[in-house]
Amino acid sequence: MSGLILAAESGPGLNLEGQNLVLVAVVAGVALLALLFAGYLVREVLSASQGTEKMQSIATAVQEGAAAYLKRQFRTLAIFVVVIPLLLLLLPAEDWPVRIGRSLFFVVGAGFSALTGFIGMWLAVRGNVRVAAAARSDGEKAAMRIAFRTGGVAGMFTVGLGLFGAAVVVLVYTGNAPVVLEGFGFGAALVAMFMRVGGGIFTKAADVGADLVGKVEQGIPEDDPRNPATIADNVGDNVGDCAGMAADLFESYAVVLVAALILGSAAFGTYGLVFPLIVPMIGVITAVIGIYAVSPRAGDRTGMSAINRGFFVSAVVSAVLVVGAAFWYLPASFEELGVDTDGSAGMLIGDPRVFAVGAVLIGLVLAAAIQLLTGYFTETNRRPVKEIGESSETGAATVILSGISVGLESAVYSALLIGGAVFGAFLLGTGGSITLALFAVALAGTGLLTTVGVIVSMDTFGPVADNAQGIAEMSGDVEGAGAQALTNLDAVGNTTKAITKGIAIATAVLAATALFGAFRTAVEGSLADQVGDAAGTFNLGIDQPDVLVGLMVGAAVVFLFSGLAIMAVGRAAGRVVLEVRKQFRLKPGIMDGTEKPDYGPVVDICTRDSLRELITPGLLAVLTPIAVGFLLGFNPLGGFLAGAIAAGTLMAVFLANSGGAWDNAKKLVEDGHHGGKGSEAHAATVIGDTVGDPFKDTAGPAINPLLKVMNLVALLIAPTAVAYHQSAVGYAIAAVAIAVLVGVIIWSKRQGGGIASQQAAEPDATEKVATT
Amino acid sequence: MSGLILAAESGPGLNLEGQNLVLVAVVAGVALLALLFAGYLVREVLSASQGTEKMQSIATAVQEGAAAYLKRQFRTLAIFVVVIPLLLLLLPAEDWPVRIGRSLFFVVGAGFSALTGFIGMWLAVRGNVRVAAAARSDGEKAAMRIAFRTGGVAGMFTVGLGLFGAAVVVLVYTGNAPVVLEGFGFGAALVAMFMRVGGGIFTKAADVGADLVGKVEQGIPEDDPRNPATIADNVGDNVGDCAGMAADLFESYAVVLVAALILGSAAFGTYGLVFPLIVPMIGVITAVIGIYAVSPRAGDRTGMSAINRGFFVSAVVSAVLVVGAAFWYLPASFEELGVDTDGSAGMLIGDPRVFAVGAVLIGLVLAAAIQLLTGYFTETNRRPVKEIGESSETGAATVILSGISVGLESAVYSALLIGGAVFGAFLLGTGGSITLALFAVALAGTGLLTTVGVIVSMDTFGPVADNAQGIAEMSGDVEGAGAQALTNLDAVGNTTKAITKGIAIATAVLAATALFGAFRTAVEGSLADQVGDAAGTFNLGIDQPDVLVGLMVGAAVVFLFSGLAIMAVGRAAGRVVLEVRKQFRLKPGIMDGTEKPDYGPVVDICTRDSLRELITPGLLAVLTPIAVGFLLGFNPLGGFLAGAIAAGTLMAVFLANSGGAWDNAKKLVEDGHHGGKGSEAHAATVIGDTVGDPFKDTAGPAINPLLKVMNLVALLIAPTAVAYHQSAVGYAIAAVAIAVLVGVIIWSKRQGGGIASQQAAEPDATEKVATT
Repeated sequence: MSGLILAAESGPGLNLEGQNLVLVAVVAGVALLALLFAGYLVREVLSASQGTEKMQSIATAVQEGAAAYLKRQFRTLAIFVVVIPLLLLLLPAEDWPVRIGRSLFFVVGAGFSALTGFIGMWLAVRGNVRVAAAARSDGEKAAMRIAFRTGGVAGMFTVGLGLFGAAVVVLVYTGNAPVVLEGFGFGAALVAMFMRVGGGIFTKAADVGADLVGKVEQGIPEDDPRNPATIADNVGDNVGDCAGMAADLFESYAVVLVAALILGSAAFGTYGLVFPLIVPMIGVITAVIGIYAVSPRAGDRTGMSAINRGFFVSAVVSAVLVVGAAFWYLPASFEELGVDTDGSAGMLIGDPRVFAVGAVLIGLVLAAAIQLLTGYFTETNRRPVKEIGESSETGAATVILSGISVGLESAVYSALLIGGAVFGAFLLGTGGSITLALFAVALAGTGLLTTVGVIVSMDTFGPVADNAQGIAEMSGDVEGAGAQALTNLDAVGNTTKAITKGIAIATAVLAATALFGAFRTAVEGSLADQVGDAAGTFNLGIDQPDVLVGLMVGAAVVFLFSGLAIMAVGRAAGRVVLEVRKQFRLKPGIMDGTEKPDYGPVVDICTRDSLRELITPGLLAVLTPIAVGFLLGFNPLGGFLAGAIAAGTLMAVFLANSGGAWDNAKKLVEDGHHGGKGSEAHAATVIGDTVGDPFKDTAGPAINPLLKVMNLVALLIAPTAVAYHQSAVGYAIAAVAIAVLVGVIIWSKRQGGGIASQQAAEPDATEKVATT
Repeated sequence: MSGLILAAESGPGLNLEGQNLVLVAVVAGVALLALLFAGYLVREVLSASQGTEKMQSIATAVQEGAAAYLKRQFRTLAIFVVVIPLLLLLLPAEDWPVRIGRSLFFVVGAGFSALTGFIGMWLAVRGNVRVAAAARSDGEKAAMRIAFRTGGVAGMFTVGLGLFGAAVVVLVYTGNAPVVLEGFGFGAALVAMFMRVGGGIFTKAADVGADLVGKVEQGIPEDDPRNPATIADNVGDNVGDCAGMAADLFESYAVVLVAALILGSAAFGTYGLVFPLIVPMIGVITAVIGIYAVSPRAGDRTGMSAINRGFFVSAVVSAVLVVGAAFWYLPASFEELGVDTDGSAGMLIGDPRVFAVGAVLIGLVLAAAIQLLTGYFTETNRRPVKEIGESSETGAATVILSGISVGLESAVYSALLIGGAVFGAFLLGTGGSITLALFAVALAGTGLLTTVGVIVSMDTFGPVADNAQGIAEMSGDVEGAGAQALTNLDAVGNTTKAITKGIAIATAVLAATALFGAFRTAVEGSLADQVGDAAGTFNLGIDQPDVLVGLMVGAAVVFLFSGLAIMAVGRAAGRVVLEVRKQFRLKPGIMDGTEKPDYGPVVDICTRDSLRELITPGLLAVLTPIAVGFLLGFNPLGGFLAGAIAAGTLMAVFLANSGGAWDNAKKLVEDGHHGGKGSEAHAATVIGDTVGDPFKDTAGPAINPLLKVMNLVALLIAPTAVAYHQSAVGYAIAAVAIAVLVGVIIWSKRQGGGIASQQAAEPDATEKVATT
């Protein structure tokens, strides 16, 4: 058994000199250039026209709401950024400088994650009105250009900060970089998870709440300025789809790098500490090319053509450059790398350059395949969405059923693709150690990363276009061709959002799998240090009943997390409904325009509720690995991680694709099929879309950071869990974790359940609006 | 590693003499007595009055439809019962008599499974009208008595046939019993899976189809004789909830016994081949007591009181008798059993009697805990259902969302309970081998089994009461107190059905976990025989990327299976809707009673469609383990099984409890809350209930046999997968399996999608009914 394993080499084995030192410095430099380029894009966006005064005043309201939300969110998260670094200091490490470095870079990771989200959103709430203004005066292509440039800033910040942080850790800590990187990744993942969950609850509470009263009860269209929830809805697009998403992809980026560097240094020594930085550096360069390639051309049929061009150009250029870099940088044989290939000539692939290129290409191919598959299951002109559209003729129940079955099925194919990528990477390492195979998985992850710059740009494009349409609608100042241009952009945005989610979950799975490998190395190292022998006690065999129980618990956490997130949206949306109904009741003049709705309270409700509601799922992610690791042991903790990865992959894709398919089935009906707008079929698809909202924008995407937070917590506590295995201290730690968790879940249940109990608590809101 | 494992002892190590021979013969005798008792109950039920002529003619229609369905289903399944025994002959075994025995007992298991389903249903379609007649003339208690006696027959057949089959195998094959039992369990599980899926599709296609046109479009109540789908709906209750369910629980019973006997003989030698038969024999005796204890008494508040009394009386008596049996039969130390407790005094529990009693009690406690938990999440007077009811005030979307989040959350607690039971059993085996720990899991399963007789009686009660109400409604001959009595019985039936599903999934998980252990032993044995050394190649470590991929695939199959089952119901229901609309259009006199609807065509559609639709999920269950085992290898196959168990547990409970909660939320509104019948809230909960129908009655319960079929296939192919590991023959087998699977999935997609495409194919049905 032990012959199969490469122990993680600590400090002295790794050093950064000569060419390697220069290379890492170059990587850091390129990362800074990416940030500079982002600054250039910001100037370009801000210099565009802001449109009419009415448009600007609406944009200002959205900006204020979004800024207020983020401010309160950062204040809420501050406690974690203070407490967790202190707790991290308690965990063992090589020496104190490394301990301090880990805590310090936790703060850096958390800060970068927040900053990426903040910058992305800061510009999005400024870009939106400019996109609307450009559509009004200069047409679709000019509007699209600004929208995509706005997204480009988020993209550049994601890759720039992620790469810069990782490169600095490698430069400063070299041999101890893995431990410090754990802190960096954990900070990034934790903040991103909170931003994803909080933003997701905000955006869908506002959206669902606005729709339930506005569209369903009052019969006014989306983004109607008479709806008191409409500003909150637009704020939500930004805090959820911009800030939350950008933080999430930053975190994916950082964590994949962390995993690749940890495993790379264990498998390839110093080479493994440098090569995983070179691949994403190439990605930064090609992202810039990709963003320029998106400039719409005369021959483009739709906006999607330009975006696809950007994606594929950057992917192909990345592939070519990675091949060049691998053959230039890496040695030609595993022996030169000092890799123990199990002492045999059994390696399927004897050349580490081929190995590395193969792994990175697997990631690139996976990105393209996911893009195609997601498109198939969520685009309006393909069979699955068409079938959901058809089922609308027999009512909402069949819409829900067909959407759920489409989602379940698509999850399977995505899981097979991702599983195929992992298996392919595993085959590349055939004959070598598990660490080598897992390094291949992590390298495939870095292959995916090379497209992240373009992906984030694409994704941020979505909410910016959505908001631009909202501002245009509310102000009433954009009409005719301009309005049509914004509608087209919004449709493109829906597709890019679905694709991004597919890529994000693929990244998450590869990162989590690689981190899982790091966890394994950590447990083994600790056992060797503390017990002297790992063979007897370390057994992640799934045939061990305790590991199997850990597996079930891990899968269960994914279900619970999803359930809690969906429930949170339902609860918060209920409060929004009550507030909106109250305003319509107390200000009967809103509907005929003689009174103005008050947008502030709904924004406040969404802010307050989403920040309160994110606590339970957040603590669930942090505390369950602790509870499992100290109560059941480190072997079940391994099973726990595997169960979470398997269930998380399927659940995330299921939720994202069901939601995306329902959204587009609604659009299909609105385009005039099956009776068109206002028909019963339309009402049925609106119900499907509303069900899909928290699926695709709250619970589904939050599973990505969840997987990584849980893996990182497990990785961080691994040595401690080994030290206190089946001891009183260990059980005490588990007891505290479980007590806090149970307490929080009960507290969250007490926060008030459905609508009716809230109405009972707020007696002046018990009747429905009487003004219609 | 190898010190931890007890190799399965083959033939010569086990023999049945003296006391043991007598004991097994007694078990077989008691099993036959159970069947005799069932015959006595049949006479009692058949001697009751059949009510009015109109009631009898309706009952006859239901009887004919149900018999026709089962006849066609058995004809469809015949091909499997012919082909699979031949294929099984190809698999290696000790000698030819054992090979033939395995194939023979495959047929016996399949036949018993079918017979249990058939008998349960045969009497249910005769009991229903007698229950209605008793309610009409003698009141609720008499009606309940007949309903529960009818269920008792299914219960007695389940336990009687299961126990008799297993005891005969042990008597005849003794040392080779494990191999033959694999055949017996596989036959039982395969037929049960087909009956569960087919019956589930039938019943929900009819139910959903009847509701969509009847309730929603025409506004006529459930079971209205004017609805052409109403007989099919009642037939469905019998083929799904009676025949399918009884076959499923028979299979659970048989497979738990199979797993317990395989592991028991490996862990405890001959003792382990006898004790797992004694525990369920006790269950047979206590089931008879339980069935008599259900006789309603004067002081009972509701029908549920009597049923609870039956359940708990039989559980407590079982516990007491098991303690007695263990202390009387088993030796006082592991040394006497010849068990290698790892050569140390490290066993946590040194007394095998305490070990055995502890394990059985874990099962009994689990049964009671699941009953309470399921009740909490699905009863109308508890918080979760109330919250779903409240959410109906904001429309169908919030009903769906809250039901889904309730289901997801409840799945977690159920999984924790089941996981806790597995972990508890594992702790009992601390210090011993994995086989010992897994035997404890299997014994916990036999503990659950002691309640199965009562459980099946309870569950069959549900559809009988439901049908009785249907017959009463359609005939119009039962009014006043009689009708109220039947409504009450129907409500009790809903609760018992939900509880049964909880128990069934718990049994399935324990059985699958134990079978998984048997798989492990089989692989290890084959490796030792064929390669001479298992240590190097056998590694179910979840940190191996290929095992992790297997895990993901296993979890994915559960998602795909669920998606396919839900989709099948949607498709078949669509065809029912078209037929019903056509009848209303062509016979406008149906609504005012001047024309009669034709019930036959809908029954035909449901029969044909459900039999066609069950092929894809059925082949998925059989072929995916083959594909994984031969393509990826036997280690990933282990991961596959674990992934399926973890995801299957959660998915099954999620689907069952969401569905159950929606059903009761609808009842809550119908009882006058949130606006009552006919309100918008009611319409919203009807949508929830319709979505829940295929969740709780098709996809959810079919996951139980799915898990066991996949585990049994893996167990059967284990030696072959080892022999052809990474060989051309192995890859060829995998290729055939994958090709068939892909072909069937594509074929199933081609079967026509949603309603609209079917309408296009059937142009005279393109308009909606014009008669309203």
